[in-house]
Amino acid sequence: MEIGSYLKKQAEFINTKIREHIPSGIPEKLFEAMAYSLMAGGKRIRPILVLESAKALGMENTDSITDIAVACEFVHTYSLIHDDLPAMDDDDLRRGKPTCHVVYGEAIAILSGDGLQSYAFELISSNRTVPPEKLVKVINLLAHGTGIYGMVAGQAADILHEKENSFDDIQFIHTHKTARFIQSCCQIGGVLAGGSEEEVNALGNYGLYIGLAFQIQDDILDEIGDEKKLGKKTRKDREKNKLTYPAVYGIEKSRQVAREYVENAIEQIKILKRPQILQQIAQYIINREV
Amino acid sequence: MEIGSYLKKQAEFINTKIREHIPSGIPEKLFEAMAYSLMAGGKRIRPILVLESAKALGMENTDSITDIAVACEFVHTYSLIHDDLPAMDDDDLRRGKPTCHVVYGEAIAILSGDGLQSYAFELISSNRTVPPEKLVKVINLLAHGTGIYGMVAGQAADILHEKENSFDDIQFIHTHKTARFIQSCCQIGGVLAGGSEEEVNALGNYGLYIGLAFQIQDDILDEIGDEKKLGKKTRKDREKNKLTYPAVYGIEKSRQVAREYVENAIEQIKILKRPQILQQIAQYIINREV
Repeated sequence: MEIGSYLKKQAEFINTKIREHIPSGIPEKLFEAMAYSLMAGGKRIRPILVLESAKALGMENTDSITDIAVACEFVHTYSLIHDDLPAMDDDDLRRGKPTCHVVYGEAIAILSGDGLQSYAFELISSNRTVPPEKLVKVINLLAHGTGIYGMVAGQAADILHEKENSFDDIQFIHTHKTARFIQSCCQIGGVLAGGSEEEVNALGNYGLYIGLAFQIQDDILDEIGDEKKLGKKTRKDREKNKLTYPAVYGIEKSRQVAREYVENAIEQIKILKRPQILQQIAQYIINREV
Repeated sequence: MEIGSYLKKQAEFINTKIREHIPSGIPEKLFEAMAYSLMAGGKRIRPILVLESAKALGMENTDSITDIAVACEFVHTYSLIHDDLPAMDDDDLRRGKPTCHVVYGEAIAILSGDGLQSYAFELISSNRTVPPEKLVKVINLLAHGTGIYGMVAGQAADILHEKENSFDDIQFIHTHKTARFIQSCCQIGGVLAGGSEEEVNALGNYGLYIGLAFQIQDDILDEIGDEKKLGKKTRKDREKNKLTYPAVYGIEKSRQVAREYVENAIEQIKILKRPQILQQIAQYIINREV
């Protein structure tokens, strides 16, 4: 199967699993808002990477860890809800749909994000199949990659640096905002499959490189992508004076840097038992149009 | 030592431990904002309850679990930062100081809250002394008590119900917004001390009751407390048409209900090895003026 179709099929599988794990409760509006954002579409690349990283180490049956993959998408969804808030990036539309705060109001959007984050950790710590020592490592990796030394730091730097232009800043933002979380997802899959330190590190390096390539491609698509396919306005970054790769280096140089990251990523995981799918995902990341 | 002085001494101890665990990093403004809110004072009742619950089961040395107690205060601080946001309760002052968003702006306040939540789970999962199976339980209790079935649900209900007045609503809000988290703190201490299911449940019931009493006392102090001692404006709840105990039942009936909760709390933990300090804390909660 071609990798694009494979990823589409996997995203559908993740969607089914997300649906199974969507919480219900009171107040209804809070739970509606979380469900709305969870089911608003998306490539589901992070949970897919958790599962594919485990499979790359030879794990045949990933049933016992799908809830952990889903939890990673919960954290991603929380970050999107908060990023879209008026005080942050102030986006009304995501994936062609009104954003959470537009539909449910700012207060419920903030609380939905908060709740999705805590529920991710609740989900992982409720897993009764994976041994506790692995769960603790997984929680540590997820909290680290998405927290104050990862995603949260990157988003803060992105907001604080909106009007400057420097290589160090953009590298810091891309590494922290996007790559560290993707790195964690790959490491999490590795830990869950019982990988050696060397294997988990290789997966982590792979994740870091494809995360960087992924963000450059996002910036390129914001510059020259198809609005209909993307389901959002393009050239928003430029309007907001955001620090992006194409803004600093131009499209061609950006594409070249992304290609180099992908080559490095592919190289990193040669030592694994079954690196092929992950290697194809790396390639796909810079060829995608959405 | 009188219980008020004892709690003051313990709060100072927690402050020292918080200071030791304050993270540093880039961007500086994000880390400054977190430190600002962490060190803005407070009774530190949640971390104190973690440690005192463990001691009530006979744990002599709590050094190995202070980081977990501190993590609970990190979660509490995140919730205060987000509660104070303009889109939420819109408070400019807390404990006599300008709130986080007033000093650092809304975006950094949102991210500081997000980061403090994830860092709490990072801290707990970094503990190398407590066995992993206990850490997983602790993480589950914390995420549950402060998440979508606990604090986050309570805060959402509080915001959605601001203009109504019904017993069910106020009971739901108090239970979820305040009591569930305090319940979790007591259960966490119990789990860490290796308590039996019966002991951990007793601690949980104790926590639930004192949490409910604590919130009623908060509402009473908002109605008739001393602004100088409290470091914040009183009668804010009334201005905002918030659903409070005194608004629904009047001061005297509210006091009586709080007293009954405290009696129940004291009763619950009679089975423990050393229940005295926790019992005195329960009494103190409804006698406090701040």
